[in-house]
Amino acid sequence: LTFDSACIIGLGLIGGSLARDLAALGIEVSGYDPDPNTVKAALETGTLKAALPETLDGAAAHHIVIVATPVREVPAILERIAKQKPRAPLITDVGSTKQAIIAAADEVGLGQQFVGSHPLAGLERSGWEASRTGLFHDAPAFLCRTATTDEAVLEQAREFWRLVGACPTVIDAAEHDARMAWISHLPQAVASALARALKHHGFNRHDLGPGGRDMTRLAASDARMWTDIMLTNRVELERAIANTAAQLTDLRNALLDEDEDGVLRFLEGGKV
Amino acid sequence: LTFDSACIIGLGLIGGSLARDLAALGIEVSGYDPDPNTVKAALETGTLKAALPETLDGAAAHHIVIVATPVREVPAILERIAKQKPRAPLITDVGSTKQAIIAAADEVGLGQQFVGSHPLAGLERSGWEASRTGLFHDAPAFLCRTATTDEAVLEQAREFWRLVGACPTVIDAAEHDARMAWISHLPQAVASALARALKHHGFNRHDLGPGGRDMTRLAASDARMWTDIMLTNRVELERAIANTAAQLTDLRNALLDEDEDGVLRFLEGGKV
Repeated sequence: LTFDSACIIGLGLIGGSLARDLAALGIEVSGYDPDPNTVKAALETGTLKAALPETLDGAAAHHIVIVATPVREVPAILERIAKQKPRAPLITDVGSTKQAIIAAADEVGLGQQFVGSHPLAGLERSGWEASRTGLFHDAPAFLCRTATTDEAVLEQAREFWRLVGACPTVIDAAEHDARMAWISHLPQAVASALARALKHHGFNRHDLGPGGRDMTRLAASDARMWTDIMLTNRVELERAIANTAAQLTDLRNALLDEDEDGVLRFLEGGKV
Repeated sequence: LTFDSACIIGLGLIGGSLARDLAALGIEVSGYDPDPNTVKAALETGTLKAALPETLDGAAAHHIVIVATPVREVPAILERIAKQKPRAPLITDVGSTKQAIIAAADEVGLGQQFVGSHPLAGLERSGWEASRTGLFHDAPAFLCRTATTDEAVLEQAREFWRLVGACPTVIDAAEHDARMAWISHLPQAVASALARALKHHGFNRHDLGPGGRDMTRLAASDARMWTDIMLTNRVELERAIANTAAQLTDLRNALLDEDEDGVLRFLEGGKV
């Protein structure tokens, strides 16, 4: 193993699960979380060797630094880490959007040491309580270079994600974000829109069948975290939402017209 | 058991699963399906004791007749059965919309013997191959009276659904259909709209994470069957789709305005 020690900032579903996996591999994990109960639980289970202070002093001494906070908090944290003149050979994050984060890493002078990461492992659960070992097993992990990432650092990022069972793929940050707007952020937006429509009409989860429950499950996700993700990816997400709303309008029109062929073609055309 | 024999018209997911459950309970099941391979398989597995001809001659001699075809085919089949002056103490169906079907039962003179049924057990799978015993275990089954249903017949319908493990509830047909437009047909429509948007942008199921796959799974459902359901319930479904499209537009506008509070409120308001 190239890493003896790691530092994880933010011990939610993703950060907490990484901490558990790394600890299980015998790596010394230090960490910080704004919730003192989370830090206490992580120390008591032996997942964390040490807790970091809110200033994050000492973070930069670790072999790898992972920022696992909501996406819009990442730039400020990178700035704080940059001031420590980190010797860490790899600094990464786990956020669902990548362009703003890798730009921030370059801006604070961490570009060479930084690789943006996005493991596709989050579900509607969140927080330390939801974290577990093995969360990243067979999960895709997208890796994005900054303008200046060292090739050796990128190789270390690949090794790191393979270590926890994920399948790393290097992708351009802009392409990543555009792709995620459709395949990840759009389904989240649609689940919330459907859940709101049902709620508005007086229905809740208990009223639904198995299909309806699947279709609204994501709506239970952390709203704060998704607000950050959606705002950082708003341009492409807005296009994706507009396309989906237009699809719904096409179906409405076919129903209003009692257009049997139109409804059939609509449904046939939705087989992916 | 009040029923020694049953006749099932249409041996797809629902009809086939009912046939399997009834056969397992020792009830003699006769059946018809337009697909000769389905009939052959149902006879070979011993699920069916006898196959009915396309004319459905002999259907009315059974204790219970279950019409398990796509909803818009039910009225014509009821008409054919009515001509046999059936002695069957219970005639029912399994369709996802109920108003048109119970009106048809009254119209052809089967009102007293007929109870409309809708077991909430269908998923995206369909056809005899997808049928299995135990499909209705703990599933809600909605029962709708015609204008003239005998109370004793309604009691038999309740008993029938309890026999296969379902939980019967009597509900007004108009109320049933309005409810289903929201909790069942709307999620189906939204899954297809989302799948179409993704497909239109070049993505397929393999590109999606677990959340996106859940959100598009229903889009693989039988398009012909759902065209029937959606057209028979088009008035309320159109309202439900319009509400959902309006929700998506609200989110779009909040994103276009970079309205952080608006996005957060939208997502918080989708927790059902």
